[in-house]
Amino acid sequence: MTPDSSSSPAGDPSPSAGDRRIPVAVLGATGTVGARLVQRLERHPWFRLAEVAASERSEGARLRDRVSPDIELSAVDAERTLVSLDGPFRSHLVLSALPASAAREIEPELAARGHLVVSNASAFRADPGVPLIVPEVNPDHLDMVDHQAGRWTPTGGPARDGGGIVTNPNCAVAGLAPVLAPLDAAFGLRRVVVTTFQAISGAGRPGPSAIDLVDNVVPWIGGEEEKIEAEPRKILGRLVDGAIEGASLTVSATATRVPVLHGHLEAVSVELDRTATVDEATAVWRAFRAPEVARGLPSGPEQPIVVLEQDDRPQPRLDRDRAEGMAISVGRVRPCPVHTLRFLVLSHNLERGAAGAAMLNAELAQASGRVRPALG
Amino acid sequence: MTPDSSSSPAGDPSPSAGDRRIPVAVLGATGTVGARLVQRLERHPWFRLAEVAASERSEGARLRDRVSPDIELSAVDAERTLVSLDGPFRSHLVLSALPASAAREIEPELAARGHLVVSNASAFRADPGVPLIVPEVNPDHLDMVDHQAGRWTPTGGPARDGGGIVTNPNCAVAGLAPVLAPLDAAFGLRRVVVTTFQAISGAGRPGPSAIDLVDNVVPWIGGEEEKIEAEPRKILGRLVDGAIEGASLTVSATATRVPVLHGHLEAVSVELDRTATVDEATAVWRAFRAPEVARGLPSGPEQPIVVLEQDDRPQPRLDRDRAEGMAISVGRVRPCPVHTLRFLVLSHNLERGAAGAAMLNAELAQASGRVRPALG
Amino acid sequence: MTPDSSSSPAGDPSPSAGDRRIPVAVLGATGTVGARLVQRLERHPWFRLAEVAASERSEGARLRDRVSPDIELSAVDAERTLVSLDGPFRSHLVLSALPASAAREIEPELAARGHLVVSNASAFRADPGVPLIVPEVNPDHLDMVDHQAGRWTPTGGPARDGGGIVTNPNCAVAGLAPVLAPLDAAFGLRRVVVTTFQAISGAGRPGPSAIDLVDNVVPWIGGEEEKIEAEPRKILGRLVDGAIEGASLTVSATATRVPVLHGHLEAVSVELDRTATVDEATAVWRAFRAPEVARGLPSGPEQPIVVLEQDDRPQPRLDRDRAEGMAISVGRVRPCPVHTLRFLVLSHNLERGAAGAAMLNAELAQASGRVRPALG
Amino acid sequence: MTPDSSSSPAGDPSPSAGDRRIPVAVLGATGTVGARLVQRLERHPWFRLAEVAASERSEGARLRDRVSPDIELSAVDAERTLVSLDGPFRSHLVLSALPASAAREIEPELAARGHLVVSNASAFRADPGVPLIVPEVNPDHLDMVDHQAGRWTPTGGPARDGGGIVTNPNCAVAGLAPVLAPLDAAFGLRRVVVTTFQAISGAGRPGPSAIDLVDNVVPWIGGEEEKIEAEPRKILGRLVDGAIEGASLTVSATATRVPVLHGHLEAVSVELDRTATVDEATAVWRAFRAPEVARGLPSGPEQPIVVLEQDDRPQPRLDRDRAEGMAISVGRVRPCPVHTLRFLVLSHNLERGAAGAAMLNAELAQASGRVRPALG
Repeated sequence: MTPDSSSSPAGDPSPSAGDRRIPVAVLGATGTVGARLVQRLERHPWFRLAEVAASERSEGARLRDRVSPDIELSAVDAERTLVSLDGPFRSHLVLSALPASAAREIEPELAARGHLVVSNASAFRADPGVPLIVPEVNPDHLDMVDHQAGRWTPTGGPARDGGGIVTNPNCAVAGLAPVLAPLDAAFGLRRVVVTTFQAISGAGRPGPSAIDLVDNVVPWIGGEEEKIEAEPRKILGRLVDGAIEGASLTVSATATRVPVLHGHLEAVSVELDRTATVDEATAVWRAFRAPEVARGLPSGPEQPIVVLEQDDRPQPRLDRDRAEGMAISVGRVRPCPVHTLRFLVLSHNLERGAAGAAMLNAELAQASGRVRPALG
Repeated sequence: MTPDSSSSPAGDPSPSAGDRRIPVAVLGATGTVGARLVQRLERHPWFRLAEVAASERSEGARLRDRVSPDIELSAVDAERTLVSLDGPFRSHLVLSALPASAAREIEPELAARGHLVVSNASAFRADPGVPLIVPEVNPDHLDMVDHQAGRWTPTGGPARDGGGIVTNPNCAVAGLAPVLAPLDAAFGLRRVVVTTFQAISGAGRPGPSAIDLVDNVVPWIGGEEEKIEAEPRKILGRLVDGAIEGASLTVSATATRVPVLHGHLEAVSVELDRTATVDEATAVWRAFRAPEVARGLPSGPEQPIVVLEQDDRPQPRLDRDRAEGMAISVGRVRPCPVHTLRFLVLSHNLERGAAGAAMLNAELAQASGRVRPALG
Repeated sequence: MTPDSSSSPAGDPSPSAGDRRIPVAVLGATGTVGARLVQRLERHPWFRLAEVAASERSEGARLRDRVSPDIELSAVDAERTLVSLDGPFRSHLVLSALPASAAREIEPELAARGHLVVSNASAFRADPGVPLIVPEVNPDHLDMVDHQAGRWTPTGGPARDGGGIVTNPNCAVAGLAPVLAPLDAAFGLRRVVVTTFQAISGAGRPGPSAIDLVDNVVPWIGGEEEKIEAEPRKILGRLVDGAIEGASLTVSATATRVPVLHGHLEAVSVELDRTATVDEATAVWRAFRAPEVARGLPSGPEQPIVVLEQDDRPQPRLDRDRAEGMAISVGRVRPCPVHTLRFLVLSHNLERGAAGAAMLNAELAQASGRVRPALG
Repeated sequence: MTPDSSSSPAGDPSPSAGDRRIPVAVLGATGTVGARLVQRLERHPWFRLAEVAASERSEGARLRDRVSPDIELSAVDAERTLVSLDGPFRSHLVLSALPASAAREIEPELAARGHLVVSNASAFRADPGVPLIVPEVNPDHLDMVDHQAGRWTPTGGPARDGGGIVTNPNCAVAGLAPVLAPLDAAFGLRRVVVTTFQAISGAGRPGPSAIDLVDNVVPWIGGEEEKIEAEPRKILGRLVDGAIEGASLTVSATATRVPVLHGHLEAVSVELDRTATVDEATAVWRAFRAPEVARGLPSGPEQPIVVLEQDDRPQPRLDRDRAEGMAISVGRVRPCPVHTLRFLVLSHNLERGAAGAAMLNAELAQASGRVRPALG
């Protein structure tokens, strides 16, 4: 038995002898996003799941007895015992799938203890001291986390050395921002009008009632439009002296909920500084690759944007699973009589928009040397 | 037996003695829109159903054996015998719910014989000699039909005196144009970006396959966007010397099909000539009434546009049936960061968008003295 | 102003002068069933809505601010003020749409005060002292309520004179029992195997999550199968010396939830004492009428059971609204290779299965002289 | 270039040098089942796709231009050229996903030429000379195919040596029969009452209209109940002197279509010769394994039947994909008050019920030495 495994909490699996992958803690492991993080770690080449935590009422329970029925865990993971969100955690790297309210309390506290918290929560996305990252778009913003140590103190005290918080975008922005970024780089992006068709799983469990989504569309998602309008400016912004100078872009969003399980579809019209033809935009999207530092991350598809040519695509059910939900589909690219171009974007809200996004950020943190084998 | 009833085709009901309502023929009576026209005539104060026609393969059959299962007809109507689309028809007024291809052949022929054809088909909507009418918006365009006699000849020869073709808009435009018209009148309308969420029944039967609309949205409806971009310009245009001078408006449309039975929802952003606040626009919509000539028509709601104030409305299932599907719901009116205002529009595609629209046009024709008790 | 109206709670409508209809209180008016009771009272010939009550957290609020969005109330009803479930109520007749837990506490208390409580709740359906009634089937069981006064005391003390509790069946049984009753009378009913396809609205709000009913069926409804197996025995039983002798019938039920808004469909196989052909059973169902005492009730269709002959009917969406949801559709009647006959039953769970069922019981109580103009 | 590949039709991929897998032809490759067969062959350990055929109107086209959008083929398969259903085919083994009408004509003709046709079509399932096989249940029935040579001649002449037709069951029976078989073996099976909830994909494309399956269930599938009642008797029957002696079982089936994409759910009540407890039945199902000859086939799960213990399972969306759709889920096993036991069964209609079923039969044919490397 290795020293490491001997200190496992009772009932939890020990890593195989010789498993040299970096231990990771997952917070909020019972929800769909948290469970998907657990599942993504099952065969991860760099990381291994070491600790799973959930809210007080699940503490001490087996994961299998509390986990979302939508995710089929491995037998080993199903048997894990849930620990308190307060920890203590031995893993330096903490993946958080907490709801915003819990994240707001717990994440700064963990950063103060020196954990690197890679969070899917919305709590700190708009915080000027916290990076909001899509590795293919703005991996350089990750430098912001280095400035959190000793300085950033929303509630938990300043982050300890090596500690900090990194966030990924809202699930609708996660598909949109990588599509806007290369347009902005190539043609200059001024204005965006977007209407979303968002999937039910984006609301978590219990989420919307069935009575509201049979033979119906609900044209409102509380707080969503504000995020879609604000987050792209931060993601496409420039890091200047450790702070983000937001992009000058204006976004108008209308967010709706449709009877679709997974996959956010978005109808987008963009006004560009320079004229761009359908072929030019298509070429730019197809050529788009992550910057060097973020290239080859295990969860990142080599080609992040797939442009479809059929008239009636992308469709949520047919296109959401491309590259395990990490590739973004663009289709129906055509000139816009009001602006410059219009098109549809589809991305998997649980993968590219949540669990995959957080995992990709964790991989970026590791690739850039910021993850430690254990809390120091 | 009255003289009138003695000339009824075998098997068809005679009008009650003393029923002085104007006889009407319905073409394409077996489809959902045609059957809804039949149903709307059951208790119509001005018109009575005299003749029902359908395509060759239904000729001679009882209506009940061929009609869409979605419409529950009265026992009397269910027993009617379907006659040929070629007629001859005794009614001067003909309501057409034919598909575009059949309409293109038959409607001009009927106009040439002197029938006033009030059509829901798309075949002649864009024809410069044919009026495209929403009674609350452009009832004056009906004058165009008076110029068809002796002149308009797409295929059937010139219309005979009293004959002609009148059309109503595409089902997505039928809800949109009346909402745009008062904005244009009050503030000047420049540009519109609209994304539609269209109901299944808009496609007729068999329509889309279930396999494509469970857990899915199809972001394309062939030919629809072109209509949504063109028709508002004609409807909001001015009649000058018998021809339409289109409005200068530019529309960009993205049309999608969602798993909803009835009710087209549309997310709209408008750029106006003059600034308008949410309250000003709301007041303009609430004050909107049909012009004098079109006021008080039996199928027209007194208040054509209802502005909802709840955050999450309009919703197709909850709002489509307002005023028997003839009132249009507007909701979520708010400033648009890219244009001037944005809002959602909902209207019942089979009522305001098809059967009710054609009926309202027939009523306008009657109110303006253009309908005759029988073909001369 | 009449003396009656002068004592109305502030903000509540007074009955029109000369409105001689019997006042009624509705408990649980904010839920879908309660709101539907309110709506059914808008034009009721015998009863008028006098009082609306809801749970503590809605007390004092306007009905419109708490009511289920699925029901569109009249302007007058929307403005009513909700009072406490504890009353006091002036109406003798109380219609209860409470959840079982609240019903269990409040209904006996009201009976003890002398109110006749006509309840849709499951709380006392199985109570040997409480009648479980479908007016077309067992109106004579209503005599049981006369024995409650002074005797029946589950928790609230004995019912006061004129007070008591009357219940209607579970929403799946409400459609099934009236179909079984005439078979039993004509041929003797031994065994029933039934599989239900139950609509979402049967679960109230919030009800099942959309994530569980898109692209899915949930083959379990907690507690439902037990009710479907037990209640028909009581309804089809005989009243002997004031107590029910249950029918000897055996029922095996499997209850499932399907993505349908309203309308419970049931696939039924029955074993009869005597052989019955499809034609014989059809004739028996078509001839079925309510017993004299329950005939002509305002909410009862003249013909309670409609037998459909098309291959593919009944279907929830097409057949649930027959006779305002009070007629039960039977279809696909055919011999059963295992038992005697098999067929499908459809009934509207909110009407025949809940609000309409309670209203019909209230009407039966009035027709049999048990309702008083006010609490004595 | 190998001799084999040099004779490939233009445009079709050559097998990799050294690919010693047995060549297979797929008929009806453009439909969902056919395309799924193509997909299953991509990584098959024993077989390789050599020829793809479709109806006349697709002949000469690329597979990618005609294939069902529901199946994502590999780039290599997408480029294959469709040949005529008449062949000639070089593969001895032919997998047929043809509709019944085409199968009726073509399959006997291919058998007469010496092909072993493993068919998913219903055309010959009931033919007394054709085996109807589920490898885990009745692999011995495959012997029947040996008697087809020189004798069996429905239309195509007698099968040539090595030629013949083998079928798999209807998609609803494919899940049911393996669940009934071990009950029959252990306890004796007398009577079965089954109600199905069948998925949309079972109807192929275009299949049911969306307008019929939003907010609805269609309680009828033409011809389905007859198959569900007849096929289990043949599958559970005994092969005596080259002919099937049907099991004495009686089945009563009601078949419905529900708004589910994939996965047929069935509510089953069984009457057994001997009493069986829930635990006994569960043990029998869990112990059930394929007979020796059919054990370890590449597409067969080691444990064909999974018994679930949660109250609300199996559910189509959550359980259909178990073992790539080849494991059958049983749940809610409980005593039946009318018969002996009742339970729910779920199986994937496209895998266990169609493409996987045919593939498993092909594997059984190979394992039993009946497949040749090429048409002799």
